[in-house]
Amino acid sequence: DDNDDNAMDTYAAAVISSDQLGNTEMRSKLLSVQQIINELPGTHPRDFFSLSLTSLGDASRKRRAMMMNQYSVKNTIHPWFILPRGSEIVMAFGCMRALITREKAFIFDAHKPTIKQQALRISKQIMRRDRFAFRDGEIIFHHNGGKKNKTQFEVIMIEEIVREVCTMYRRRIHLYEPIVNSLMDRVASEAISPSGLHKLVPLKDSLQRFEMNVKGALRCITDLLSNDQDMVDLLLTEKAIAKSENRTLPIELHGNVEMMLEEYARQLSSTLLEIDFMLQRVQSKQDMVAITLDANRNRMIRMNLNLTIGGISLAFATTVAGFFGMNIQHGFEHAEGAFETIVAGSCLLGGGFLGSCYSHLYGSG
Amino acid sequence: DDNDDNAMDTYAAAVISSDQLGNTEMRSKLLSVQQIINELPGTHPRDFFSLSLTSLGDASRKRRAMMMNQYSVKNTIHPWFILPRGSEIVMAFGCMRALITREKAFIFDAHKPTIKQQALRISKQIMRRDRFAFRDGEIIFHHNGGKKNKTQFEVIMIEEIVREVCTMYRRRIHLYEPIVNSLMDRVASEAISPSGLHKLVPLKDSLQRFEMNVKGALRCITDLLSNDQDMVDLLLTEKAIAKSENRTLPIELHGNVEMMLEEYARQLSSTLLEIDFMLQRVQSKQDMVAITLDANRNRMIRMNLNLTIGGISLAFATTVAGFFGMNIQHGFEHAEGAFETIVAGSCLLGGGFLGSCYSHLYGSG
Amino acid sequence: DDNDDNAMDTYAAAVISSDQLGNTEMRSKLLSVQQIINELPGTHPRDFFSLSLTSLGDASRKRRAMMMNQYSVKNTIHPWFILPRGSEIVMAFGCMRALITREKAFIFDAHKPTIKQQALRISKQIMRRDRFAFRDGEIIFHHNGGKKNKTQFEVIMIEEIVREVCTMYRRRIHLYEPIVNSLMDRVASEAISPSGLHKLVPLKDSLQRFEMNVKGALRCITDLLSNDQDMVDLLLTEKAIAKSENRTLPIELHGNVEMMLEEYARQLSSTLLEIDFMLQRVQSKQDMVAITLDANRNRMIRMNLNLTIGGISLAFATTVAGFFGMNIQHGFEHAEGAFETIVAGSCLLGGGFLGSCYSHLYGSG
Amino acid sequence: DDNDDNAMDTYAAAVISSDQLGNTEMRSKLLSVQQIINELPGTHPRDFFSLSLTSLGDASRKRRAMMMNQYSVKNTIHPWFILPRGSEIVMAFGCMRALITREKAFIFDAHKPTIKQQALRISKQIMRRDRFAFRDGEIIFHHNGGKKNKTQFEVIMIEEIVREVCTMYRRRIHLYEPIVNSLMDRVASEAISPSGLHKLVPLKDSLQRFEMNVKGALRCITDLLSNDQDMVDLLLTEKAIAKSENRTLPIELHGNVEMMLEEYARQLSSTLLEIDFMLQRVQSKQDMVAITLDANRNRMIRMNLNLTIGGISLAFATTVAGFFGMNIQHGFEHAEGAFETIVAGSCLLGGGFLGSCYSHLYGSG
Amino acid sequence: DDNDDNAMDTYAAAVISSDQLGNTEMRSKLLSVQQIINELPGTHPRDFFSLSLTSLGDASRKRRAMMMNQYSVKNTIHPWFILPRGSEIVMAFGCMRALITREKAFIFDAHKPTIKQQALRISKQIMRRDRFAFRDGEIIFHHNGGKKNKTQFEVIMIEEIVREVCTMYRRRIHLYEPIVNSLMDRVASEAISPSGLHKLVPLKDSLQRFEMNVKGALRCITDLLSNDQDMVDLLLTEKAIAKSENRTLPIELHGNVEMMLEEYARQLSSTLLEIDFMLQRVQSKQDMVAITLDANRNRMIRMNLNLTIGGISLAFATTVAGFFGMNIQHGFEHAEGAFETIVAGSCLLGGGFLGSCYSHLYGSG
Repeated sequence: DDNDDNAMDTYAAAVISSDQLGNTEMRSKLLSVQQIINELPGTHPRDFFSLSLTSLGDASRKRRAMMMNQYSVKNTIHPWFILPRGSEIVMAFGCMRALITREKAFIFDAHKPTIKQQALRISKQIMRRDRFAFRDGEIIFHHNGGKKNKTQFEVIMIEEIVREVCTMYRRRIHLYEPIVNSLMDRVASEAISPSGLHKLVPLKDSLQRFEMNVKGALRCITDLLSNDQDMVDLLLTEKAIAKSENRTLPIELHGNVEMMLEEYARQLSSTLLEIDFMLQRVQSKQDMVAITLDANRNRMIRMNLNLTIGGISLAFATTVAGFFGMNIQHGFEHAEGAFETIVAGSCLLGGGFLGSCYSHLYGSG
Repeated sequence: DDNDDNAMDTYAAAVISSDQLGNTEMRSKLLSVQQIINELPGTHPRDFFSLSLTSLGDASRKRRAMMMNQYSVKNTIHPWFILPRGSEIVMAFGCMRALITREKAFIFDAHKPTIKQQALRISKQIMRRDRFAFRDGEIIFHHNGGKKNKTQFEVIMIEEIVREVCTMYRRRIHLYEPIVNSLMDRVASEAISPSGLHKLVPLKDSLQRFEMNVKGALRCITDLLSNDQDMVDLLLTEKAIAKSENRTLPIELHGNVEMMLEEYARQLSSTLLEIDFMLQRVQSKQDMVAITLDANRNRMIRMNLNLTIGGISLAFATTVAGFFGMNIQHGFEHAEGAFETIVAGSCLLGGGFLGSCYSHLYGSG
Repeated sequence: DDNDDNAMDTYAAAVISSDQLGNTEMRSKLLSVQQIINELPGTHPRDFFSLSLTSLGDASRKRRAMMMNQYSVKNTIHPWFILPRGSEIVMAFGCMRALITREKAFIFDAHKPTIKQQALRISKQIMRRDRFAFRDGEIIFHHNGGKKNKTQFEVIMIEEIVREVCTMYRRRIHLYEPIVNSLMDRVASEAISPSGLHKLVPLKDSLQRFEMNVKGALRCITDLLSNDQDMVDLLLTEKAIAKSENRTLPIELHGNVEMMLEEYARQLSSTLLEIDFMLQRVQSKQDMVAITLDANRNRMIRMNLNLTIGGISLAFATTVAGFFGMNIQHGFEHAEGAFETIVAGSCLLGGGFLGSCYSHLYGSG
Repeated sequence: DDNDDNAMDTYAAAVISSDQLGNTEMRSKLLSVQQIINELPGTHPRDFFSLSLTSLGDASRKRRAMMMNQYSVKNTIHPWFILPRGSEIVMAFGCMRALITREKAFIFDAHKPTIKQQALRISKQIMRRDRFAFRDGEIIFHHNGGKKNKTQFEVIMIEEIVREVCTMYRRRIHLYEPIVNSLMDRVASEAISPSGLHKLVPLKDSLQRFEMNVKGALRCITDLLSNDQDMVDLLLTEKAIAKSENRTLPIELHGNVEMMLEEYARQLSSTLLEIDFMLQRVQSKQDMVAITLDANRNRMIRMNLNLTIGGISLAFATTVAGFFGMNIQHGFEHAEGAFETIVAGSCLLGGGFLGSCYSHLYGSG
Repeated sequence: DDNDDNAMDTYAAAVISSDQLGNTEMRSKLLSVQQIINELPGTHPRDFFSLSLTSLGDASRKRRAMMMNQYSVKNTIHPWFILPRGSEIVMAFGCMRALITREKAFIFDAHKPTIKQQALRISKQIMRRDRFAFRDGEIIFHHNGGKKNKTQFEVIMIEEIVREVCTMYRRRIHLYEPIVNSLMDRVASEAISPSGLHKLVPLKDSLQRFEMNVKGALRCITDLLSNDQDMVDLLLTEKAIAKSENRTLPIELHGNVEMMLEEYARQLSSTLLEIDFMLQRVQSKQDMVAITLDANRNRMIRMNLNLTIGGISLAFATTVAGFFGMNIQHGFEHAEGAFETIVAGSCLLGGGFLGSCYSHLYGSG
């Protein structure tokens, strides 16, 4: 009661509606909770909590908090569910939160530009759908017999939302690939700069969060696939017709929805495999860096050891020379050949030490 | 028989009761086991063990032990269960242990201030419930048609306890996030103080214990969800009515409870994902620290190696100088240009050694 | 046939029997296989193998082998099963191996003092059971209406054996806790003695073996819980009555046994969680030690590097001094201020080298 | 509509057809989507997406992209499915994508030479099949009674495709084995060149991708095995006969297909075990390399330490000699035996330091 | 057709047959595929592939290949299955491959001496079986009433093969135990020779391969246990009788086979636990070695640091002495006490440096 300003209670939604002739339209709306309930009288209050919508007020509050404190950035892991209710479907799939009826679909959080763009893409896709012309860089398939694919609006809507998210994920995979590949190539070069290492952490973090989201999507779809009744309940139109005719929908009707969901489950699980494989490669790259650093260190320590041996050989000679350089009479001051003898002797001493060290180091080891 | 002082047999409980008009009241009570049994005649003795309540005497004994010996601190992992019995529900959910009947709920361990506060919050929540005004910083939803939500006291009570714990966990996530984020940011800075490293261990420990508790809560709810009969048995009021009318409750009645539990299962699993992700980030931070330390060490060892090479080059010159500094006649004492020749020669010797070392080190490697 | 001395064929058993009035008695017996079969005619020969009993002869042979060869110590992982047979129950639970009939229970391997003690404790517990006074340091519960708990001897016996093992495990957790806690506290102190490290290995080994045993116990109980028929078959007395009345036991009768087993399953899984958490803490301690060692090493190598730089600065001065100390005329022997100039110059040379090294090391890095 | 050049819409396929007499023929064809639909009228458009065929245009485009940018190489993880449709079977198994009817099989992506070769091998295998002469280097089995094995074309085709892929995988295992074995053998030799280490990463990557593909194949087959209805639906011929006779196929008919698939599932899971084991060996090799590097480093550091001790012992003597070499009168210049005394004394000083260091190092440690 | 020499088509088999009186006989035979089919007319050709038998020709070819190329050694992971067919049982269990009928059992690969020995042991065991005298070092059990154990030949045969493999595995555990134990004991001793480390890799490899085989055996048995129909189908004799009497076998008959298999499943899973535990211990040993190496290295580096500090202190004195040793007039040549002053001063300089370094190192750290 203390916080009832309008922005707090207002939600931006993209409303996609379709008439009988297949004309699809998308409009942006600002709705209060009361208006949402008026439009969708059958929605369960609990579902609003599950959707965890962001009102306009919350959104601007968050934006302000994010500017002030860099650590409060919250990369929420998305909730994933497709819940059939009496006459609506409540759906949260990736960043998309939607309420779908037989004629309309409310896509929420439309104050974000990306969501708005996706809603627009979906509405266009639905319009083009009766011409059946897909082109994802892989196949062109023209199919003009629109009669066979007379699927209902709610099912098409679910498929388009799922497809949008799956396509987004597949596109993201293509973005990660060159990064991971270039990382793997640099393994061979010895000069691993610490700055290069620091790229590993955000890459791994980002891949792991991506993996979690894809896992969430996959689990959501496989949960739905394991429940035949829920799949039948998604057919709002046929459920309404059946209800008006006082019969229940036969469980066999789930076949079409099942085939559709299975395809996206396959797509998602192949995306998941790709991510897993990339993560494994990043991990083995990390292991490799650790071992390469170790091997290089050993090489340097071995060289240092050789140098230390050499240094001590010189120290022998220096010490001998130091003794004879003392201001103390030793009797050889003017002896013939003493200089040469002592220089040669001390060089031999050092050389002998050097030789015995090396023979110990490389002979026995 | 040997330990029957009163404190040992007395338990502090917060009793929440609700009358027909929806007025909810919370009272604190001290009860002996005998009194509990009188109030709840149908409770099975075994359930008391499962609840593993702490009597006032035990609590003060523990507090004393904790003061004397710092290592005996026992952070018990909570038991998690919601067991429908004949006319009661035995519930241990997180730190909350409760016995719920159709009119009353006993929340035990109320000698702890936090438990007492939670019980108070729950009782207030139940009172406000018929106005349906939730505000978790995410959504405000006013719903005045109280008729539809005519759920029974025991179901409301279960939901409120589960909600209390889930909300507590979600709040705790928000506490962990800035800590983990700030830790991740400090990766780039080289000066990783060992004291900073020591913060990783308690953070990881704490996150792991948190994860265990959330997993426990989730398993408890999913176990209940997988058992339709148990969900129906939670409906104490309807069970009593059915019994008085000599019929059994149809299994279909579990729908409402299922929908409620499913929502919290979703909340908990998204909390769990957040924790997993934080743990993964802490782990990759730890890996990163290890590799950064390695890389820095290599840099230092390489520099040390260069210096050693330089030192030995100087040692060559020193040794030569030492030989000529001996008190022994070598014949060049007064030769013209001997000084310059020897200095230049020994410097060339050292410089040549230096050059050959560097060419070996950076030329071939 | 070649090894038929008596000891080889004789087994020590503690026989617990209970009469109608609830008086329980425990006697130690030495039985041959023949005698066991006479007492328990329905036992399947295969079950004897599963129990893998140790005869007196084998026990003394093992003891001797253990003394002679320290590496032959075999810490067998216990077998875990509760198998209902026609008129007996074959049970191997932790260190306890038992054959239970309607009136008697044979607890084998009673030549070990611990087994004997446990059998004694069980027999006392059964006698006290009708007064229902448990006190595990947590709850005292007096219940004198013995009528309600008129459970049969075989079920009581199973519960007591399971309880004995669960209690033993919970007690062991309390022994591990201060050890693990004290280990965690010592993380902060730098002086990690290698002897301290060596305590980690046996602690981890011991915890892992403990975990395996608890997992075995839990799996045994959950397997039984997932098989309603087996739980009904445990009710030997009621099965015998039903058989004499020519009817089969209804499957619904498993409720009591199920409730009992569920409680111990909960206890065991909470014990398991505690162990898992302790193992995780030991593991993170180990990781921490590794990183702390690394960080300390880096600190030492950095200091060594600084010292090497200093040493080479001095070496510059020494080399210059060495050149002027040669017995060769250089012309500055009696020059005014030459001494001061050369000392200052070589110090400046060294100092300049020092400065440029440090600026390279800390300026760019 | 914007991209309708012919190459974009044309797919290379190898068509295998078999007449009643068992004569099998393979022809290469270039088909547009329209032609494929004309030949296989019952195919669902969705299945074309699942197959994700590569048209000739896409193939040449990819080839060009690969040449220009080395990082865009995309080693797609294969999709795996065997989907029975009305009168066709859609199959993607490893690199093979096929549409199978009762008389014909279209193997796509036949613009790749390997696919074409595999299609040829399959068509030959089918022809030889009625003579039943397998020889995989393991068994020769002549069986001329062709009557018993009168399996239908579609089932034979599925088996041959599955067999082709399984055989390919088993052959690849034999290629990996000597590489992994030779890697394991080189563990013992100390001189682990960093270039040798770099072979570990691509080997591990390659094994992991291989493992993923085998897992995909195994999951595909076990999914099919767990669904009896799908296995019956694979029997296109018998389904057509049953349909013409207006009866449904009994579920028991899946036995033959099940037995066939089970064999390949066994083959694949044994291949998987081999890969797992190889991966484990590579991992333990990597661990071993890390520890060996550590142990060698310790050995070198220990030797360096010994040398440093020796160097400082010499430095003692040098310092003493330096003091007596100063141009300052000390009074012993002409003392009898002073030279010998000082040399011996300073040597003793150095030797004493050496001894005390070694006794500290090896005595207490 | 191209490779029809006799050896290629000849298989060595040990044929165990049993007459009505319980007399068991084992004969070695060389059989061609044609002969095997004549003896076992119902065998499915596919099963021959699954058995993947080695003909005499293949065996000698492999032996030759092994001698020439050491890397081609292929330690095949065994296939594991027990497949009931019409009138035979096809069985591959560990190294044993067998075809079992109601009267005979063909154990293949009998050209290997170990297989032959195992077949002999099995045939003896079957003969002795009616006297029921097992002695596995654990229990002696005499049972002369042979009537009760009137199990059929095929079931006895399966049990004996499974038992043979389980016993072999348990014996192997006993071989591993002292090796692992002795490895664990050597942890404490510092002098970990690199040669000792190299024993870890083959030990781990060997344990992992062993674990895979035991897992395979366990999965094979649990798969069979989860399929009641398959267990009934193993009863060839009763199936034949039922067929001749035109009735089907009731599913309840699987009880005996189930009880038998369950025992071996228990044995195998306890073997598996032992292996897991050993692997964990080897792993923690490896971790421990890594940390011990690290700790020792730190100790050595710290000592090296101390020595470097000492060396530089001496270098101070040497440098000062060097300056005064130059052939340049400094004015103190004949000053009274100059020698003592300079010696003391430079020693103080060095000592002061030493002191400040140590106070920095141990005071602040």
